[in-house]
Order: sequence, then C-alpha cells, then structure tokens
Amino acid sequence: MSVYEQLKALDITLTPPAAPVAAYVMYVQSGNLIFISGHIARKADGSPWVGQLGKNIGTEEGQAAARSVAVALMGTLQEAVGGDLNKVRRIVKLTSLVNSTPDYTDQHLVTNGASELFGQVFGDAGKHARAAFGVAQIPLGCCVEIDMVVEVA
Amino acid sequence: MSVYEQLKALDITLTPPAAPVAAYVMYVQSGNLIFISGHIARKADGSPWVGQLGKNIGTEEGQAAARSVAVALMGTLQEAVGGDLNKVRRIVKLTSLVNSTPDYTDQHLVTNGASELFGQVFGDAGKHARAAFGVAQIPLGCCVEIDMVVEVA
Amino acid sequence: MSVYEQLKALDITLTPPAAPVAAYVMYVQSGNLIFISGHIARKADGSPWVGQLGKNIGTEEGQAAARSVAVALMGTLQEAVGGDLNKVRRIVKLTSLVNSTPDYTDQHLVTNGASELFGQVFGDAGKHARAAFGVAQIPLGCCVEIDMVVEVA
Repeated sequence: MSVYEQLKALDITLTPPAAPVAAYVMYVQSGNLIFISGHIARKADGSPWVGQLGKNIGTEEGQAAARSVAVALMGTLQEAVGGDLNKVRRIVKLTSLVNSTPDYTDQHLVTNGASELFGQVFGDAGKHARAAFGVAQIPLGCCVEIDMVVEVA
Repeated sequence: MSVYEQLKALDITLTPPAAPVAAYVMYVQSGNLIFISGHIARKADGSPWVGQLGKNIGTEEGQAAARSVAVALMGTLQEAVGGDLNKVRRIVKLTSLVNSTPDYTDQHLVTNGASELFGQVFGDAGKHARAAFGVAQIPLGCCVEIDMVVEVA
Repeated sequence: MSVYEQLKALDITLTPPAAPVAAYVMYVQSGNLIFISGHIARKADGSPWVGQLGKNIGTEEGQAAARSVAVALMGTLQEAVGGDLNKVRRIVKLTSLVNSTPDYTDQHLVTNGASELFGQVFGDAGKHARAAFGVAQIPLGCCVEIDMVVEVA
C-alpha cells in the first residue's frame, strides 16, 4: 500500500500544523551522517545499570557507566560501518542524559567518562561537540543514556 | 596507533549491539534533511494533553499521547515536503521527551506509541533511530513532546 | 541591516568561546552543518547563571539568561565560520534545556529569549526549528543550556 492508502486504512486525517507555541532501530545513516539511538548504561552482565546521580550513584560510578555506554555505542557504530571503524571521519555530537536529582550538578563530569574514551580511541576524529544535562528518569531506571551523530567516509 | 590498536591497548573488546530494548518555525530543511520542531501532545480538540507519567497519566494513555504527536509530526512533514509524503526517504531520528516523575521508568513504552505508527505508515522508511527519556516538565504541562529529523528526496 | 549592523544596533559584542569545562570541543562542522555544543547560561562576569525555574528564577530572568546563551552561541559560531557571520545560511535547530521544577511549564517563553534574538540578528536566516523542555538539572547548576545546528555556506 502507498503512504496515503496506509493513512486511510488507519483512519488518520492529516492537518497543517497548529500555530507554533512547541519499535525503532539502533542507527540510521543519511548521507555521510550516522544517527545512533540513545544507548542506556548496562553492567557487564547486560543488566540495566540502575540508579540516579545525587541519590544512590556517585560521580565516579556515573563516569564508569558513561564509559560503558561509549563502548556500546562503538559496537553499534562498528556494525553501522560494515565492520570497519576506520571509516569513521568524526564523532560529531554526543547528547548525554544523566539521571539526576534536582540537586546534582556534575553532569559534565559524568559525561567525561564517555567523551574521554572517544578521544582515546579516535584521536582528533573523536573530538566532538556535546550537550550534557540532568533528566528526571531514563528507561529501565538506568543512570546514563547517550545518543550520537557520526560522520563517516 | 590505529583504532584497533587503541582498542587493544585499552583492553576493550567490541561486541555487536544488544537488541534494541513561540518564536520559531515548525521545520527547517537543510540539504536532504528536514529538522522538525518538538511537537507537544494535544487532545483531539487541540487542547494540550496535560499530565505527568508516574503521577496522573498511565503508560497506556502516554502511548496514545505519543501516537497523537506522531500524527501531528506527519502533518507538519507533509507540509514540509510540499504535500507529498512519498518524497520521504527515511524517518531518521526521533527524540522523545516524556514528562516523568523521578520514579517512572517506562519512557520507551510510551514512545512506542509514536514509533510503531511510523513503522506502520512508512514501512522500512519509517524505521528510525531514537532517544527517549524522562524530563522534568514540558511546555504547557504536556505529557509528551517529540522532535525528529527526516531525510527526503 | 546586515548581521553586524544588527549586532551593533543591539549593542552586542561577541567574544570567542571559553575553553570547554570538560573533554569536548565547542563545535564540529560536518559538510555544511555546524553542530554547536550545549552552552550554559553565564552572567556578565562569566560566572554560572545558577537557578531553577519555578524555584528561584522567574520567567523574565530565564528569558534574559536564554538571551545571554544566544549571545555566547553567536560568539562560538563566529569562530566556527572563520570570523564572518555572513557565511551563515540558516539557524537550523535549537534544543533548549530549561532547569525546571516539576511544576514549571513555561519553557517555551524562557526559550523565546534566545529565539527572538536570532530572529533580530539574522532575519529570515534566523528562523529556526527548536525543541524546548524542562530538565532536572544542568551542569554547574545553570538555569538554561542551549545547543544548536547551523547551516553555513
């Protein structure tokens, strides 16, 4: 079925946007950019790395969790580039979500656990823009989630 | 050192990814990418779909709200491509913000309300990367807000 | 008026970005897109603009903080384009993170402090897509953080 036949089958009527006020995959490549889904922190056994900074997880553990996310992101990235990470031209942008109480303000230090690993592995190509901030919660109660944009050859 | 030499030096073994567990405009196109603004959930009458997951909105209602946001996003997308959604080559990336208490951890399920709809409507082209997480609040008190990036012909 | 005539009329002086407080860079260009890191709000003396909307910062002060972030983003952007803001073709997308209590719902009004300035300075090229929402916290306790994507010639 075409897009419009599908919409019709689902009984959906599209309208122009109102006046301004305001089952996924692990990665999508568009041109030379790969958009990688948010990866949540997991422990070595694969279980969710649960906790909240400022409550029951300290900055050092948060950094370790962020680093584990970076490793998982690279695993996904390797698959995205057909098994050859040498095709990576630049880690472009990280968005780092740190599960935080309203009082915890060291999201940048937690995120360094990931940022420093990309720098170590990719050198200049690993130097990225980023945003890091505290969120109210993360799926499965994980302490850190990171997504990223990567430029490839 | 090459990437793999660095990885080895750091004692890192890569594995395949785990299974996927106001004053602005509504969209901007740059090259083949359309960046669509965050759309907040609205009820059928256009009023804000107010509430917070974990407080006064359940997961099932959150999914319905997310689905409504996806419908709104497609309406905006249709305008962005000059009325012909067949020009969509790929839904690239969704960022899903779920208005959450510090205890609510099913943001991924809520977001499926949107993701599954894109899959139904666009088929393979609807398979997108995404990040979903819990935020402290959303404009007008809405329960869900989603923005997205789309590749078009 | 040109970009620089507008800046002069608004009595805005752009400065190069401060060194990152962590392991990342302030911007990365990929093709015609520049991804600028999240910039946190700072006062005129450079100190973090600390506070939370709904707690100890009002909407009007939040707008002033968002405007200050926009000025800082333009300073970084100017460096990213080799000193000539006339190379900017479009402010594509802003993501605005407003440090919010669970009760504060005017993140869109706060963000207008940045969005309106981009419109004043860049005219049509300053009309951007955006997402604005409330986060649990921001590095150093700042009240607002904004990142952005810009298309350049």
